[in-house]
Amino acid sequence: MKERIAEIICVGTELLMGETVNTNATEIARELSRLGIPLYHSVVVGDNPARLKAALKSAYERAEIVLLTGGLGPTYDDLTMETVADFFGRKLVLHEESLAAIRQYFEKAGRMMAPSNEKQALLPEGGIVLPNPNGTAPGCILEDGERVAVVLPGPPREMRPMLRDQVAPYLGRGNGVIRSHELHFYGIGESELEYKLGDLMKNALNPTVAPYAKPGDVMLRVTASAGTAEEAERQMAPVMNKLRDKLKDYYYATDLPDLQTAVVRALHEKGLTAATAESCTGGLVAELLTEVPGASGVFGCGMVAYQNEIKEQLLGVPGELLKAYGAVSAETAARMAEAIREKSGADIGVGVTGNAGPAASEGKPVGLVYVAVSSSAYTHVSRLNIRRQDEDSRALIRRLAALKALNLILRAAQAAPPTEH
Amino acid sequence: MKERIAEIICVGTELLMGETVNTNATEIARELSRLGIPLYHSVVVGDNPARLKAALKSAYERAEIVLLTGGLGPTYDDLTMETVADFFGRKLVLHEESLAAIRQYFEKAGRMMAPSNEKQALLPEGGIVLPNPNGTAPGCILEDGERVAVVLPGPPREMRPMLRDQVAPYLGRGNGVIRSHELHFYGIGESELEYKLGDLMKNALNPTVAPYAKPGDVMLRVTASAGTAEEAERQMAPVMNKLRDKLKDYYYATDLPDLQTAVVRALHEKGLTAATAESCTGGLVAELLTEVPGASGVFGCGMVAYQNEIKEQLLGVPGELLKAYGAVSAETAARMAEAIREKSGADIGVGVTGNAGPAASEGKPVGLVYVAVSSSAYTHVSRLNIRRQDEDSRALIRRLAALKALNLILRAAQAAPPTEH
Repeated sequence: MKERIAEIICVGTELLMGETVNTNATEIARELSRLGIPLYHSVVVGDNPARLKAALKSAYERAEIVLLTGGLGPTYDDLTMETVADFFGRKLVLHEESLAAIRQYFEKAGRMMAPSNEKQALLPEGGIVLPNPNGTAPGCILEDGERVAVVLPGPPREMRPMLRDQVAPYLGRGNGVIRSHELHFYGIGESELEYKLGDLMKNALNPTVAPYAKPGDVMLRVTASAGTAEEAERQMAPVMNKLRDKLKDYYYATDLPDLQTAVVRALHEKGLTAATAESCTGGLVAELLTEVPGASGVFGCGMVAYQNEIKEQLLGVPGELLKAYGAVSAETAARMAEAIREKSGADIGVGVTGNAGPAASEGKPVGLVYVAVSSSAYTHVSRLNIRRQDEDSRALIRRLAALKALNLILRAAQAAPPTEH
Repeated sequence: MKERIAEIICVGTELLMGETVNTNATEIARELSRLGIPLYHSVVVGDNPARLKAALKSAYERAEIVLLTGGLGPTYDDLTMETVADFFGRKLVLHEESLAAIRQYFEKAGRMMAPSNEKQALLPEGGIVLPNPNGTAPGCILEDGERVAVVLPGPPREMRPMLRDQVAPYLGRGNGVIRSHELHFYGIGESELEYKLGDLMKNALNPTVAPYAKPGDVMLRVTASAGTAEEAERQMAPVMNKLRDKLKDYYYATDLPDLQTAVVRALHEKGLTAATAESCTGGLVAELLTEVPGASGVFGCGMVAYQNEIKEQLLGVPGELLKAYGAVSAETAARMAEAIREKSGADIGVGVTGNAGPAASEGKPVGLVYVAVSSSAYTHVSRLNIRRQDEDSRALIRRLAALKALNLILRAAQAAPPTEH
């Protein structure tokens, strides 16, 4: 089969005004990458039929599959479906099932349906209708010889499930089965990871290995395409084992969305609870833990002790200790972790104290953070020195310190020694 | 002067793999919108010279100003500067000042400079060099008759200040002066705002009024272009007054980045302090407040009481009250706000308790949240009922509840009555 190339067209004047970040383009690109479908161009045009038609023309000169999002709303300036239909010489016809679904959507939400919403049930003749359980506008797939157009709604919470549940299986069919796993690593940078893995990553073709890096967190996606799911899994297993082994000091989970989910999962599995005492992270560690549904079973108590008096009076860090070592010190961090563990009755306590900037304080430089963990087995303090200094550094310092705290909870829950990175 | 049209080309295979969200395109688009320069196309291509050249060709058929980002790194596949120079028939020459700046950048960071970084000082002959104080790759502006190319680095923390401090003044010159102000509103949706403002927004040409909405927060940017800054300010003043007056129940600040900054600012101005007791928001209110530099002067103490025992034992919510009304109740929220105010000695206390999902608990539906504020003047409880239920709803419920808490702190600090939206 000839390799088919994809192109993305996002439609929306709000994107060209800089009012909305184009996450749809990213999510569609990621899905195409997962499916192994090459993407060489991704474009944005406004809600303008002439320019959209020109974009479609250019796209089909370079690609066979064009995915469009946006411009499916009920108002007069939402013209994507009309324009695509016109481009392919198709008529728009009323799709009764979609109209019924739109009516039902409004009923369920207890809102009036405006007459203009009926327009969203007008779909190109001969198209494959993509029902939209999260909104009013259905999507549509049009096939025209070699050419395919996939029309998706603009709101990400409507687009994302339609892409994942309806479009990806459609595009993936005929290619056999594609399966992937995500391996997560904490405390290693992307370039260091690439250096350590070398050819294991670059030369991997099936399965492929692709890195996705965020500050403090690197994810490797391993993807195999094969005749059956079992075959794909068989191809991936040795590669995944090799990756986990080569990076065992950094590895923390497979197929979990993030570090906080791994922490909550590990605490649940071990029947343990954690508590937090935070200064410079200001509640971020607690906030990350409680992002995870089900966190209440393993996390009950957090304290934000942003001022010294609170550290002393409510948390119980001795005033002499604060005076002798300063609030930003290994001693204070350790005492915070121990104190919150005692006060809350949790199995594991963490303490975070540092200077997130913008100015040095107590003579402690911006970026210096102590993160402590206290469990029945040990109290340990890690020292971070985050030197990057620009307009985003406060947020970065807080984020890296919070991730360190999560990592220390995870290691303590696994009864593993803390790591020094 | 003929109106010049802009086009954006973002270069980077990582964008086409879906590894990175393209915030650069959004930020450049917003800046162009602010400058009043029309943008009709924004495209993404990979690190591929042939495709980049084709994209440049298409762009100059439709526009005069092309802004490029990405592909200025030190490695062999970073080819944007070479490709742009080649497109305009310019040679790359070593720019000594940039080389010195790159050397200095590495020295300051205490890191070794790789020989490949020297390549970043090779810039097109006759170009205007844009120094990069936040990284190694300088940017460049090339003028070629009517055509202008603006080449910017890819990392947002390098791109953003270069765009704002160097490129915007360059593009804005000759257009007179452009000034803008940002008015922030809490508790009103974008469509409701558009409805209330009607023609005041739609028909505004100079100054223009453009809305930017996030959940729980709408910003109106008022922009005037005039011969002098004073003249621009004179044009904006009556419009801004009208907007603030029409939406006075929702208005909270002008020219501040967000609600948390407005809260910290108001507390500082009034010499007041605040404390937080959070259940379902899990530390998010504290985290938002401490995002703001200088928060430590007005916020010292937060408690995350995620489990009932902690609410009872550490925060001091009476067990009978929890039993009688449940943890998710107006009574519990009020007691949490009062208790944290008493415990911490702060002037204003807030309490947040609710069900962020995913499952109903105590028979309380997902999305039901009580947010209480306690000051010397009053204790007030607001009830939120956030009905949207999809995969993002947990995060949304927590965010809207936290913003409500911030809004209640702000109203209390201003000695204004709480609002019911």
